[in-house]
Amino acid sequence: MTEVIGAAAEAEIRADDRAYVLHSWSAQAAIDPLPIAGAEGSYFWDYTGKRYLDFSSQLVNMNIGYQHPRLVEAIKEQAERLCMISPAFANDVRGKAARLIVERATPNMDKVFFTNGGAEANENAVRMARLHTGRHKVLAAYRSYHGATAGAIALTGDPRRWASEPGTPGIVRYWGPYLYRSAFHATTEAEESERAVQHLRDLIEVEGAQTIAAIVLETVVGTNGILVPPAGYLAGVRELCDQHGIVMIADEVMSGFGRCGEWFAIQHWGVEPDLITFAKGVNSGYVPLGGVVMSQAIAATFNERAYPGGLTYSGHPLACASAVASIEIFEDEGILEHARMLGTDVIGPGLRELAERHPSVGEVRGLGVFWALELVTDRQSRTPLVPFNAAGDAAAPMNAFAAACKDRGLWPFTHFNRTHVVPPCTTTADEARAGLAILDEALTVADGYYVGA
Amino acid sequence: MTEVIGAAAEAEIRADDRAYVLHSWSAQAAIDPLPIAGAEGSYFWDYTGKRYLDFSSQLVNMNIGYQHPRLVEAIKEQAERLCMISPAFANDVRGKAARLIVERATPNMDKVFFTNGGAEANENAVRMARLHTGRHKVLAAYRSYHGATAGAIALTGDPRRWASEPGTPGIVRYWGPYLYRSAFHATTEAEESERAVQHLRDLIEVEGAQTIAAIVLETVVGTNGILVPPAGYLAGVRELCDQHGIVMIADEVMSGFGRCGEWFAIQHWGVEPDLITFAKGVNSGYVPLGGVVMSQAIAATFNERAYPGGLTYSGHPLACASAVASIEIFEDEGILEHARMLGTDVIGPGLRELAERHPSVGEVRGLGVFWALELVTDRQSRTPLVPFNAAGDAAAPMNAFAAACKDRGLWPFTHFNRTHVVPPCTTTADEARAGLAILDEALTVADGYYVGA
Repeated sequence: MTEVIGAAAEAEIRADDRAYVLHSWSAQAAIDPLPIAGAEGSYFWDYTGKRYLDFSSQLVNMNIGYQHPRLVEAIKEQAERLCMISPAFANDVRGKAARLIVERATPNMDKVFFTNGGAEANENAVRMARLHTGRHKVLAAYRSYHGATAGAIALTGDPRRWASEPGTPGIVRYWGPYLYRSAFHATTEAEESERAVQHLRDLIEVEGAQTIAAIVLETVVGTNGILVPPAGYLAGVRELCDQHGIVMIADEVMSGFGRCGEWFAIQHWGVEPDLITFAKGVNSGYVPLGGVVMSQAIAATFNERAYPGGLTYSGHPLACASAVASIEIFEDEGILEHARMLGTDVIGPGLRELAERHPSVGEVRGLGVFWALELVTDRQSRTPLVPFNAAGDAAAPMNAFAAACKDRGLWPFTHFNRTHVVPPCTTTADEARAGLAILDEALTVADGYYVGA
Repeated sequence: MTEVIGAAAEAEIRADDRAYVLHSWSAQAAIDPLPIAGAEGSYFWDYTGKRYLDFSSQLVNMNIGYQHPRLVEAIKEQAERLCMISPAFANDVRGKAARLIVERATPNMDKVFFTNGGAEANENAVRMARLHTGRHKVLAAYRSYHGATAGAIALTGDPRRWASEPGTPGIVRYWGPYLYRSAFHATTEAEESERAVQHLRDLIEVEGAQTIAAIVLETVVGTNGILVPPAGYLAGVRELCDQHGIVMIADEVMSGFGRCGEWFAIQHWGVEPDLITFAKGVNSGYVPLGGVVMSQAIAATFNERAYPGGLTYSGHPLACASAVASIEIFEDEGILEHARMLGTDVIGPGLRELAERHPSVGEVRGLGVFWALELVTDRQSRTPLVPFNAAGDAAAPMNAFAAACKDRGLWPFTHFNRTHVVPPCTTTADEARAGLAILDEALTVADGYYVGA
């Protein structure tokens, strides 16, 4: 399962890492990446033998948990059979993976285009939407992350986009629903939903509906806040898209495959997008894989006309075999049901209880195993515990909170002034409760910065 | 090794494939993807049991050959140990893969940023160049392919770019050296080299050196013709870059890791680029992997300043373990030396012999296991066997040639009016000769279209 644990191994790993690996999104002199020795189920551990209960699922991808024996076995079997064949051929596990995914998506779905990850999935979804409509503009949300290739980072609304600007042309930015910090001065969910749709309707009018290829959204906004859409919002977007011939793209890279207790989060609201992008949870990242699920109408666009996109590893057999196995394991082990239960019976109630005891918790929101605590210094003003996009000293309160979690053996996911509770879907109720107990202690650190009444 | 071979399995695979998989670069109604049952060494086979000697290496990635037992074993071992950990951590095989790659690159190289494939590698190389220089424009060649994400397809010069235009701004196109169809009316290699450098020098002058972040080139142009740079060209580009503070990006996604008989093709010419991008041959595509190797100067740019790019699967342990194993196998089995020998002793002489017998062969060029035959209807006028970017009926001569190869059990790589001879680096001399013998027969089909003297 794991490797030799010891100081010698760790020193060598640190040396190689610091000397030869450029880490993403970081100033290399400011980081000290922890060498990981192994992982199993809901835990990973370092070379000192310290174990961490993972409330981050790495980058919210480890949905099935670490080193699931049956998934590992499926990868080993496919490695023996056939690791790679190019996209030009037909391949048994590629076709089966596509079928299993389409069968579990919304009823309007027809085919899958496979990529290596979520960024490429969003790149290709936009390409499909533009060619399908013959239009160029794409509406994308400020509070979003869609990947870091040129097209995907241009869709992205959060500050990770800034260093890559000016980006691809034709992106129009909108505000999505977020009642706790409403861009529309709404005070109820119903009002937020209605006003967010109105905002899109207004934008479409002034941008010109006939210039707009797609509206892209994260069904439940992920890293930028676990923003669960209020009732009616997704249906409202769908209606606008229908009215104007605009393609609705649901980015489910983070929200799909069990994260929200469904195969795709949008099924929670009974809405059918035209394109769904996925990655992460499809095989929990055991092998790099992503893709686009497309409707019959969009697939038909590329029957007689060539689809002008591709990549060497599209439909990679090793990756597809792991997706097939993961989907089968999800069904055999009732993982979707378990994720829903964790949300309704354990994590949701547990977090609301924490909010009662900790003034720094401004809001609790989420579903399934996809939750956020919004940390504030004042519940009245809702002042964030740290400023937007804080770094260095300004981020100290959140860093202190994260350190308190890690000291106690919990690996948290933090972003801006929030901590997200996003453990593997397979986390047991007891493990989740153990993690909540650690959060309870760590939140006293956040409470220390509280200045409100 | 392989699966049940039979009509029932094949029918089911075809059904899933046609119903559920969108294939890249194709009109779906116009293709009939062949189901592949298995592969080993230099061969793959279909469900009728028909075997194909692979002169394509799939998409010029299967450098180590199919299902190398030791590489398969390494993947299985890592699958048991740890499939995935996020880029934020240190990981033994990630650090080791980075070290092995840096140690085998040019002496100025320092660190690796890992991606899932070549497109993302080029996307990140351009990002690094822009941030390192504070400039925006990138010079890219017409005869090039760099990937299909928004940034990579904008770099791409070949027609695959057209459907994705208008693309990212700031790309300036240049002509590279290609003596057989010289953009500079040159008649010797020396003249072509000198004039191609002069063309770049002129472009830099009129574009403004201080606006140019990078010059990107495929060290040996791949799909667009196996264009081997004439002596002095790469050194000339390097000199221009040095003179003007421009970053030199060598795209070695196709030309690296043995394809040209070196770790990186540029080592053949003793030139040090600032960034090298790789994918494909690094692990022969057994697991999706790519990356950027960067110089000390560029790595240093991101010591105090955050590198603003990333992806969930950067430095994926399963992928990195396969890269480590592949590099070790290359050394233990002398694969670079073997690839060089194939080029100098078998494929090069064999193709030149074919050119003597077949009037349709206008030119033979290449090195290592990276060769092209340029097929023409007239050696005098050099008229291509099919027009630029031919499709449908216009492509019939090339399709007939390819069909003649496949009928005889050889899987060719064709592009426009060329067939590329790009077998695995591990192909035996006898296998290569067997493939050349089939090419000999198939070239009589091309000769049938010859109208020259």
